[in-house]
Amino acid sequence: MRTRPLKVALLGCGVVGSEVARIMTTHADDLTARIGAPVELAGVAVRRPSKVRAGIDPELITTDATALVKRGDIDVIVEVIGGIEPARTLITTAFEHGASVVSANKALLAQDGAALHKAAEDHGEDLYYEAAVAGAIPLIRPLRESLAGDKVNRVLGIVNGTTNFILDKMDSSGAGYQEALDEATALGYAEADPTADVEGFDAAAKAAILAGIAFHTRVRLDDVYREGMTEVTAADFASARQMGCTIKLLAICERAADGESVTARVHPAMIPLSHPLASVREAYNAVFVEAEAAGQLMFYGPGAGGAPTASAVLGDLVAVCRNKLAGSNGPGESAYTRLPVSPMGEVFTRYHISLDVADKPGVLAQVATVFAEHGVSIDTVRQSGKDGEASLVVVTHRATDAALNGVVDRLRKLDTVRGVASIMRVEGE
Amino acid sequence: MRTRPLKVALLGCGVVGSEVARIMTTHADDLTARIGAPVELAGVAVRRPSKVRAGIDPELITTDATALVKRGDIDVIVEVIGGIEPARTLITTAFEHGASVVSANKALLAQDGAALHKAAEDHGEDLYYEAAVAGAIPLIRPLRESLAGDKVNRVLGIVNGTTNFILDKMDSSGAGYQEALDEATALGYAEADPTADVEGFDAAAKAAILAGIAFHTRVRLDDVYREGMTEVTAADFASARQMGCTIKLLAICERAADGESVTARVHPAMIPLSHPLASVREAYNAVFVEAEAAGQLMFYGPGAGGAPTASAVLGDLVAVCRNKLAGSNGPGESAYTRLPVSPMGEVFTRYHISLDVADKPGVLAQVATVFAEHGVSIDTVRQSGKDGEASLVVVTHRATDAALNGVVDRLRKLDTVRGVASIMRVEGE
Repeated sequence: MRTRPLKVALLGCGVVGSEVARIMTTHADDLTARIGAPVELAGVAVRRPSKVRAGIDPELITTDATALVKRGDIDVIVEVIGGIEPARTLITTAFEHGASVVSANKALLAQDGAALHKAAEDHGEDLYYEAAVAGAIPLIRPLRESLAGDKVNRVLGIVNGTTNFILDKMDSSGAGYQEALDEATALGYAEADPTADVEGFDAAAKAAILAGIAFHTRVRLDDVYREGMTEVTAADFASARQMGCTIKLLAICERAADGESVTARVHPAMIPLSHPLASVREAYNAVFVEAEAAGQLMFYGPGAGGAPTASAVLGDLVAVCRNKLAGSNGPGESAYTRLPVSPMGEVFTRYHISLDVADKPGVLAQVATVFAEHGVSIDTVRQSGKDGEASLVVVTHRATDAALNGVVDRLRKLDTVRGVASIMRVEGE
Repeated sequence: MRTRPLKVALLGCGVVGSEVARIMTTHADDLTARIGAPVELAGVAVRRPSKVRAGIDPELITTDATALVKRGDIDVIVEVIGGIEPARTLITTAFEHGASVVSANKALLAQDGAALHKAAEDHGEDLYYEAAVAGAIPLIRPLRESLAGDKVNRVLGIVNGTTNFILDKMDSSGAGYQEALDEATALGYAEADPTADVEGFDAAAKAAILAGIAFHTRVRLDDVYREGMTEVTAADFASARQMGCTIKLLAICERAADGESVTARVHPAMIPLSHPLASVREAYNAVFVEAEAAGQLMFYGPGAGGAPTASAVLGDLVAVCRNKLAGSNGPGESAYTRLPVSPMGEVFTRYHISLDVADKPGVLAQVATVFAEHGVSIDTVRQSGKDGEASLVVVTHRATDAALNGVVDRLRKLDTVRGVASIMRVEGE
């Protein structure tokens, strides 16, 4: 076994970084045995050097991240700063100075994954980022290695813990969105500004990464259709239950039926209670993968948090260090299929539409005609009415999202339709 | 990209082997792109050469597996024969002749994993076997790579589809064991001789492999405590439901609380309906992993079948071919902890015990005294009786299996205990 240690520099020492440093210290012997050489924490770049960081030698702390990645003696950079800059420049500088990189940065990978992979390859370095999607859940490695001999057709994931906590709370307690969000905030599951989570930005970045890896192509954040879950109501959950469903915010990556294009999207959707994703509770994440030979797989676990994310980072760190010792590299970007990403309008989905309608004869016929005119086939209709008001719940068969959108636009213009109470896609069947 | 193909030889061409050959042909372009060089099926060793094998060049078929692995121009051997011999000799011969090996052979890996790993290492070859445990579910790679920086404390798995199908059927329909087994046989989920499945031999081999990898030690098949599930009754399921539980055949690998030893066992157990494993239906497999930093993870999917197992084999094949091209090797055996495997008596479990007792005063006191004398603490007791007969259901707190066994032996000797109707361990809490 080699005795000269591999030198690791940590960029960022917040919730995740401090756990990485802690585990590197407390489990040093295990890491040494598994890597085949000791690893040494050689520097930690932080913004606030005055903060006391238990277990980290103060000598290692610096505010000059650029100087740290340029040192030249660093073998692996662990980037847990997040955001686009300065993370992007630091990572490319690290490659230029002979370091491989382990990153947990979903935003950066979703936006600039291709360029970063190229930079890594140009310099013969590794870029690993298991922690960028679904925290501790092994997902990147299974998709790009375990399923490397298979053809993935679909990825359906609960990849944001905050929104799953909120939706689970709404489902189990009948709470409205705001009430459930308040509870999530009080318990630390939601940030003070929850926009990135509840509007689906976080999930969209993960969808872009997953779609690219699953389909061996390039999918950027801009390619991902995104709808948040702030408009999901208690009434939607009641409707879902009547259909034997619950509601989840899903990241959905699909290969088109003809195999010639892919789609990636994030939106709330009804899924049957019998689907394995339906029973994913609280802030847990889970990703359901459908592959041609493997069939249906699911990966479940904590999608965030310091220790779980650190677990994913350290798994990558061990792999990258082993590669460094062997003088080899792990799998780089695999984007050879160059499949185009189709817009949302071309996605085939099913809609669940709740309408408030006039309680008089002929309304259903009128509504049904609109669906027919747009070539959208109706699966089920449920009517209920009292006191001159009535509601109509229509669930469609699969049609393009554009056609379904056209139906809804037209329904809104009918005199007999007082309002469209809710529209929700139905998935997982 | 290299144009000289990597040569792959297939040992065995049954349900799995024929799928491997089929996918290698139909997905040749994808495999080439992902590996970085073409792969060529260079030989297929079978027992019955006269059988027509669609899509396989008859020229490739041979009955002389030994000659095939000795050819010297083979890069990777895929072993899907199963059993100990001739598989073991063929694999070691392959290493000696410059081939890496992908195997789906759980029995062989559980019995001789250490020796095979050593042979691979001695010759600088790879030994991969994702398909040996839980079919298509990525499990070996996540455990030995994704969690390489973490400390796994517990693995709890449904790793046999046949028995899960039978138990799920008993649970959902109230059927008895024989009736459910007959249905499993009729549907092709159980073999004509179901012994290896229902007596837990298959699961025990997988438990040995999982425990070794999870705890970085060596666990052999002989080290695994094993109880089958042929004595689980409809009455046991009724008892389980009263406790909010169901019954699963579990493979359980645990690190002792002091970290100084490990245990591995297979037996039927009650688990709470709220546990993610409880909702694993039909012939699906799932493995629940508890790690120090990652927390609770679950991996779910089809545990058997030609195509799913072939998916796992091909994922390994891609990895091994990439290593061949790079002149590197994947992770070998990691058994540095050398933790001893404790016998079943030292395992801490909980018991659910159903007793048929005389319906007279003082019986409960007498029974409770037995538990106390063995130092076993009682969690709950439920008494019911009619017509001079009574039943007593006792659920214990955690105690060593030896102490619990001692209690049961003593109870059997009490005059007031007419019989021990059932004993089942309670897990997953």
